[in-house]
Amino acid sequence: MDIADRRTAADPDMWNLATAIRALAMDAVEQANSGHPGMPMGMADVATVLFRNHLKFDASTPDWFDRDRFVLSAGHGSMLLYSLLHLTGYEDMTIEQLKNFRQLGAITAGHPEYGHAAGIETTTGPLGQGLATAVGMAIAEEAMRAEFGSDLCDHRTWVIAGDGCLMEGISQEAIGLAGRQELGRLIVMWDDNNITIDGRVSLSDKTDQKARFEASGWRVLECDGHDAKDIDRALTEAKKDDGRPVFVACKTIIGFGAPTKADSHKAHGSPLGGDEIAATRVAFGWNHSPFTIPHDVADAWRAIGAKGRDTREAWSARVDALGDDERAEFTRRIGNKVSPHLAPTIHALKEQTIAGAPKVATRKASENTLEVLNPEMPENFGGSADLTGSNNTFTKDLGIFSPENRTGRYINYGIREHGMAAAMNGIVLHGGFRPYGGTFMCFTDYARGAMRLSALMGVPTVYVMTHDSIGLGEDGPTHQPVEHLAICRATPNTLMLRPCDQVETAEAWEIALSRESTPSVLALSRQNLPTLRNEAGDENLSMKGAYVLREASAEPKVVLMATGSEVEIAVAARETLEAEGTPTRVVSVPSMELFREQDPEYRRQVLPGDTVRIAVEAAIRQPWDWLLLGERGREERSDFVGMTGFGGSAPAKDLYKHFGITAEAVVEKAKALL
Amino acid sequence: MDIADRRTAADPDMWNLATAIRALAMDAVEQANSGHPGMPMGMADVATVLFRNHLKFDASTPDWFDRDRFVLSAGHGSMLLYSLLHLTGYEDMTIEQLKNFRQLGAITAGHPEYGHAAGIETTTGPLGQGLATAVGMAIAEEAMRAEFGSDLCDHRTWVIAGDGCLMEGISQEAIGLAGRQELGRLIVMWDDNNITIDGRVSLSDKTDQKARFEASGWRVLECDGHDAKDIDRALTEAKKDDGRPVFVACKTIIGFGAPTKADSHKAHGSPLGGDEIAATRVAFGWNHSPFTIPHDVADAWRAIGAKGRDTREAWSARVDALGDDERAEFTRRIGNKVSPHLAPTIHALKEQTIAGAPKVATRKASENTLEVLNPEMPENFGGSADLTGSNNTFTKDLGIFSPENRTGRYINYGIREHGMAAAMNGIVLHGGFRPYGGTFMCFTDYARGAMRLSALMGVPTVYVMTHDSIGLGEDGPTHQPVEHLAICRATPNTLMLRPCDQVETAEAWEIALSRESTPSVLALSRQNLPTLRNEAGDENLSMKGAYVLREASAEPKVVLMATGSEVEIAVAARETLEAEGTPTRVVSVPSMELFREQDPEYRRQVLPGDTVRIAVEAAIRQPWDWLLLGERGREERSDFVGMTGFGGSAPAKDLYKHFGITAEAVVEKAKALL
Repeated sequence: MDIADRRTAADPDMWNLATAIRALAMDAVEQANSGHPGMPMGMADVATVLFRNHLKFDASTPDWFDRDRFVLSAGHGSMLLYSLLHLTGYEDMTIEQLKNFRQLGAITAGHPEYGHAAGIETTTGPLGQGLATAVGMAIAEEAMRAEFGSDLCDHRTWVIAGDGCLMEGISQEAIGLAGRQELGRLIVMWDDNNITIDGRVSLSDKTDQKARFEASGWRVLECDGHDAKDIDRALTEAKKDDGRPVFVACKTIIGFGAPTKADSHKAHGSPLGGDEIAATRVAFGWNHSPFTIPHDVADAWRAIGAKGRDTREAWSARVDALGDDERAEFTRRIGNKVSPHLAPTIHALKEQTIAGAPKVATRKASENTLEVLNPEMPENFGGSADLTGSNNTFTKDLGIFSPENRTGRYINYGIREHGMAAAMNGIVLHGGFRPYGGTFMCFTDYARGAMRLSALMGVPTVYVMTHDSIGLGEDGPTHQPVEHLAICRATPNTLMLRPCDQVETAEAWEIALSRESTPSVLALSRQNLPTLRNEAGDENLSMKGAYVLREASAEPKVVLMATGSEVEIAVAARETLEAEGTPTRVVSVPSMELFREQDPEYRRQVLPGDTVRIAVEAAIRQPWDWLLLGERGREERSDFVGMTGFGGSAPAKDLYKHFGITAEAVVEKAKALL
Repeated sequence: MDIADRRTAADPDMWNLATAIRALAMDAVEQANSGHPGMPMGMADVATVLFRNHLKFDASTPDWFDRDRFVLSAGHGSMLLYSLLHLTGYEDMTIEQLKNFRQLGAITAGHPEYGHAAGIETTTGPLGQGLATAVGMAIAEEAMRAEFGSDLCDHRTWVIAGDGCLMEGISQEAIGLAGRQELGRLIVMWDDNNITIDGRVSLSDKTDQKARFEASGWRVLECDGHDAKDIDRALTEAKKDDGRPVFVACKTIIGFGAPTKADSHKAHGSPLGGDEIAATRVAFGWNHSPFTIPHDVADAWRAIGAKGRDTREAWSARVDALGDDERAEFTRRIGNKVSPHLAPTIHALKEQTIAGAPKVATRKASENTLEVLNPEMPENFGGSADLTGSNNTFTKDLGIFSPENRTGRYINYGIREHGMAAAMNGIVLHGGFRPYGGTFMCFTDYARGAMRLSALMGVPTVYVMTHDSIGLGEDGPTHQPVEHLAICRATPNTLMLRPCDQVETAEAWEIALSRESTPSVLALSRQNLPTLRNEAGDENLSMKGAYVLREASAEPKVVLMATGSEVEIAVAARETLEAEGTPTRVVSVPSMELFREQDPEYRRQVLPGDTVRIAVEAAIRQPWDWLLLGERGREERSDFVGMTGFGGSAPAKDLYKHFGITAEAVVEKAKALL
């Protein structure tokens, strides 16, 4: 059917609603002289039907907890989302913002950025992330509904995904997890336009996507993505929750309506150009200047933005009707506010630890911490990428989250590090839970794409990364992180915590669970470590990032800095040096990021000038240079004991010796510089 | 069927061959007191049938080019591979090596490490990598066969993959690519044992794997993984190449034969223990002490290892019969030796560039380089993860590799960065081609898992990473690398090259394509950059890592260091400083790794002490500290102009100004320190 026939056949109101989106998208891209017009033009009909007839939302209250979540996984089509937000009346999405698409300071970034504008549920653009994040949102919805009842939580998660999203590996992790978890309120609308940047999809793929989703337990529907009635039929059907997530294959034409560029990769990522836009306007029967929406169409869209008001107000009334305590807790939970139980629980654990001075791996110390926290903090939502017994992430009170037990608070994510990380982002973005999830530190490699989005969005996802060095031992170099501490420290807005014992591990959890806009990475040892902290104190010393763990017997001549499992080595080296008459201080550095935030006066106190400085960490040196050479350190008086290349396969003790990460090596290097 | 019935029903010879593997695996894991016995015990029957009846190999000549490739994607089952190599007579895989499994200095690492022992075709362990790497091997086989004929190249690629491999997202990228490319000689044997570390697969997945593979164009077969006849039937069928890659679902029992631990995650990752092993021996009727193989079984295995000799010798005779030139070129190609055309072609391009002084983006400079190299170097094998027009990776002479055109040397990898990286590893490991592949620098995040393996294995895969900074512009922070230069530099054995103009880009390609055991990452700009090098010279100055690009008018008081697109800024800042009477040197730093390898004398010449030092790079500072604060630099006389957080969405020029990465900022910081 050509566009003239489409127009004749269409309901005029629906046609104009969708055309408004298309016009704004092509005009904004043209004005920016960059962007992606093809996808918004192709999916405008589907989005119109979704927003008009199905999506539960109220544009006047974007953060209404019980709204449906709408995730534009194909984030390059950002103008689809921005147009919808503008047209339905989201206050901050003004026409000026659309005119300033992709310009400095505008909230209309090239790809939707969480936090820039109300109505952007998650940052998308790196393909597949939106889909995988939406799985987390749907998990959180099920769990919150189970806990608080459908009067307070009763909504769906809708996703628009393109071929790029579905080719990325993360999509398989997401659909496998969603299928297993029977997330029947997750609905993915596939923009099946058969085009990628390089050309037709067939250049690189011949996967039968419908069969693929079915194979993972999804319900599959289809529709003509340019026929409003057919779309409506499919979306109506999709809302029937039968315990299977829903995949709606929407057959569309990229750049729909553009006379020479539609159905071609030329419509994907560049402005259409003045002539093509003019011809497209004619084809649509849209005689309005750029960025101009006729009143009747604007009014119709505003009405769509307001149609959820009654539902939202009824929900608010139900919240208001709750008892004070229940309402306060529900409000705290959906706002992801820090638990009042966190600090006292941690403090008690620290006191108890110092009395017992256990020798445990910090992964076990983490489990010990979770065992006291999880019963006190119903928002904690754990999991592991199939390493539960190794990551020590499960505590018995949690129960396993599954279709049969929606009040379970622990997920077997499967062997899906990337999918797990994205799902955790979705859980925290949804609100109600604080997700944490484990894998081996080395497999941050597999999760990087989503971990970076935690940081960019500023969401407090907690990564429990165990086996954080060659201390992993026999599994060998494929499983031994060497550069990964540097990678996490290099990533903006990411808090890397590497505690040295049970006390610091408890403190690290307190820090991670206190954060509201920073993800945390807990780097934890496989091997047992002694309790090194002698007093609990009232203060969380790890919050300072670095602090004096063992003071020198006199004005320090040597300062040893270390993290995690290497603090023990520094402490042993100190004893030798002190015994030989060299006053030596040990500084524990659980977090470089937090130390950097301290005032310079404190930093100078901890790291005085004019001493020998040695840093010890079973990883590469790159992040240590600033503490060794800067902050008044000097090249000729500093050295590093750590790794310079990949690890090896052997018992941990043998590896530490082989790579020269020993107290003896520290002492020797210190003495050479004295 | 229980094990007694199995034993009764089995052919005794086959039973004993497989039992030898099982015994060695459980004994070695027991001796090491760590490792994974369950998988080798479960897949021993399949492996025995494969090696005995189907695999084309000659244990006396492990590097025979035309051998079948066998990839153990489920790398934790390393003892399966080591047992096979030992039993079939690979010279270096002695019984002592098996006894030293997972010990320091042994070639029997916890996971198979490429380069440690002959017969390990690729490093595996991070799940899914073997499968995705094997796709590259199968691509290379098709391409070499098309180029040199089936007299010289005519083999298959066999993979054993477990549930972990199939749950990882990279597997979807691999199977989608293999299905599209109709790699009919790729055969994946799925160890369908229904167990993961956390328990039964159903805890985290209910994907119908057979339907999933079929959906991507694979041929699916099944067999009883403990019935030698049924396995043989399936593998015989699998060898019929009908243009579909083959997925053989082998129904197995993890830890087969262990009376209490079989079919349980308890058999997966821990020694079975003495009692269980004794009982297992009884069940198998295997009355031999640990590490002892009876002569008849040992002889039978040796005969299997030698059965390919005639075939191999016939192949060698065919190679010997080639004309001298053809043989020399074939030998060079399969040895991945550097082309004699490389250096002169690069030199000519440099001369021509300096004459023309073009202003081009380094991604375009890269294309210009490939346009002269590719016709001279038939081993170059390009591709892109669906960003061909942006990465500038295609040159017309290459042709598109596809089922219809196996002599094409360019692959549309699809939106599959991870799969692309792993496939490239497979292509170079196979031999015959030098693969390079492009995506945006930021999406190294998606490819990290495989990029790390390039480094760990020491294979010269070339990553063409364009849009390498905020210079990417309007697509915004999701697409703008900030920490990724630091990440690549933090990774051991990875060469990060960030050229500043067409001349350095040509030099970077020369370096990358000269390497034999290091992967290279070329970080290339989206935006145009002027030609800054004034002379081509006989030397590749970039090989020194850093060099004086613009000398100061007198003894330098300021040294400006920069890479890539920021060298232009440093040169402009120098002009201002010089005009104001401050002698200023500009040092271009295309590769920190190479500079680090220079002798200290050269480094001191380039970076003298007692100057102000400013580094300029549109990325985070972390990797610069050693050049700013160390190498005789001083904290109080150095500064950095770059990024401290994520980027933004705006035209590149606006972003550089917004983030203060300008010549003015450099001048100001320099003057503040003078």
